[in-house]
Amino acid sequence: MDATRHGQIAVIFASHRTRVDAAGYAEASAAMDALAARQPGYRGVDSARGADGFGITVSYWADDAAAIAWRDHPGHASIRDVGRARWYDSYSVAVARVERGYRWTLDESAAA
Amino acid sequence: MDATRHGQIAVIFASHRTRVDAAGYAEASAAMDALAARQPGYRGVDSARGADGFGITVSYWADDAAAIAWRDHPGHASIRDVGRARWYDSYSVAVARVERGYRWTLDESAAA
Repeated sequence: MDATRHGQIAVIFASHRTRVDAAGYAEASAAMDALAARQPGYRGVDSARGADGFGITVSYWADDAAAIAWRDHPGHASIRDVGRARWYDSYSVAVARVERGYRWTLDESAAA
Repeated sequence: MDATRHGQIAVIFASHRTRVDAAGYAEASAAMDALAARQPGYRGVDSARGADGFGITVSYWADDAAAIAWRDHPGHASIRDVGRARWYDSYSVAVARVERGYRWTLDESAAA
């Protein structure tokens, strides 16, 4: 994560996948990532999902208006309906404002 | 996630694992989760890591003081040194204040 995320909005999406339709989910997930990346105010996304089906995706936005616009985007809203019907058995969303942050990488550490 | 997380501090830890010492990492990770859960102001944790080695852990705290106290806890600080030496090749931390949130589960939806 960029250390300059200060002030950005983090949308923390935690979900548990059903065991059905892995191919359809993967396709939709990639399409949503690509669509999100084209929205105004998009600042990046991190995503991880374990073998137990539990996953976390954090998308970052320049401000609250950008995060809300993405929530209300018609393409995003329609896929959410499919998600509830097919791909998820539970999820939670937390919208949070970044107050500080930092990053560390092994290479930079070794070079310092 | 509990819908009452409003006002809590979310510490978003995103990391990429090296391929070494899976057993040592798993043991330390479980020990840290247990230690965190005993700290004042602890409000929960979500964690996911994919087969590619990238993982996200979000811990929730009652307020900023609790999050900082956990960051500075001696047991946590010492394990961080081991993490940098052995388990991670990069990580980032973003500390964010939750402004809103909600949750959805299939069962509750079906019951509604």
